[in-house]
Amino acid sequence: MAFIAAASFVSCTAQDIALPSPDMNQKSQSTVEALATRHSVREYDPKALNNQELSNLCWAANGVSRDSNHRTAPSAMNRKEIRLFVFTADNVYEYMAVENKLRFVVAGDQRALIAGGKSFSQDFVKEAPVSLLMVIDFDIYGSQDEHAIVMGSVDAGNVSENINLYCQSVGLATVPRASMDVDGLRTLLGLSNSQLPVMNNPVGYPKK
Amino acid sequence: MAFIAAASFVSCTAQDIALPSPDMNQKSQSTVEALATRHSVREYDPKALNNQELSNLCWAANGVSRDSNHRTAPSAMNRKEIRLFVFTADNVYEYMAVENKLRFVVAGDQRALIAGGKSFSQDFVKEAPVSLLMVIDFDIYGSQDEHAIVMGSVDAGNVSENINLYCQSVGLATVPRASMDVDGLRTLLGLSNSQLPVMNNPVGYPKK
Repeated sequence: MAFIAAASFVSCTAQDIALPSPDMNQKSQSTVEALATRHSVREYDPKALNNQELSNLCWAANGVSRDSNHRTAPSAMNRKEIRLFVFTADNVYEYMAVENKLRFVVAGDQRALIAGGKSFSQDFVKEAPVSLLMVIDFDIYGSQDEHAIVMGSVDAGNVSENINLYCQSVGLATVPRASMDVDGLRTLLGLSNSQLPVMNNPVGYPKK
Repeated sequence: MAFIAAASFVSCTAQDIALPSPDMNQKSQSTVEALATRHSVREYDPKALNNQELSNLCWAANGVSRDSNHRTAPSAMNRKEIRLFVFTADNVYEYMAVENKLRFVVAGDQRALIAGGKSFSQDFVKEAPVSLLMVIDFDIYGSQDEHAIVMGSVDAGNVSENINLYCQSVGLATVPRASMDVDGLRTLLGLSNSQLPVMNNPVGYPKK
């Protein structure tokens, strides 16, 4: 029994991905160039991003900036209530900024839930090798009234715009989207009603 | 009477400010550097920004990007429902992106309404030579249900994060804030209940 439990534990944690440090020397457009040229792209090369590229991308979205208490995206009262989930062709992970790892959440290609629900879906999303999902965690924020909904949404916008500008600056393609299967995602990720999937960004290299 | 009307018209339009074109060759940090170093600053040199600096700042926030139908900040369904007001020590203006001008709204130093209301106010805001106010216009968006509030807030976050990253990239200081006198601002600016002041960014050079 002890052997089985240990093997199971190893198998589970082995599915987490320890990311390489984000590359702070990577070439990127100037901020003014990125602002001037940022645009939405809905056609992607399906080639997967490697772990270095995923690390750089997640860091730009909402990674650790000057210290473990601060992120690349600001948040109301520095509450850091935006959680970032990473959907690949293989698995779904949660980006853990301080640990700089992808925490394994659920197996399989779940990108269809990002593409949309029964009434509206966009197939192009399933072509993107990765989609980043922003979830407002009202348990972290500390309330769920209208003010909290506004602030959580503003903070999700901060993260999404980081993704938009970063992708533009390094030659990746993305589009910010609010369409998705919210109920399906909550079930898949084990989220409660106080955790709201609010925005997503499919990301990949531009289609050749 | 005709003379008086004409003189009054000239006086009024003379208070609009035709901005110089935003300087697309200005030096700015790389996007990765700006993401890595962005941080909130609450002490400012009170020196006013000149019209070129105001043009660059407003453009970065939500100016015209590739054509008159697109902005530096994305918006849901490209509805462009975020209006940007500019509070200086002298007057309040609205930034008109396509016309690249500051439309005169009301005279005088009204920065105290950005600093806060009766129950909570932050004096440092009044030291900033300019404050940018983001207003969600639900009349432009087309509805004001919870989804519209979420999307408008996300879009305000997009604009605010543009300001944050742009300021960092060119050596300006700013902090994103939600505190302000919302009712007082609505009265001052002649806004209806379908127009929601949601975020503001005081901006200036760092205090020496």
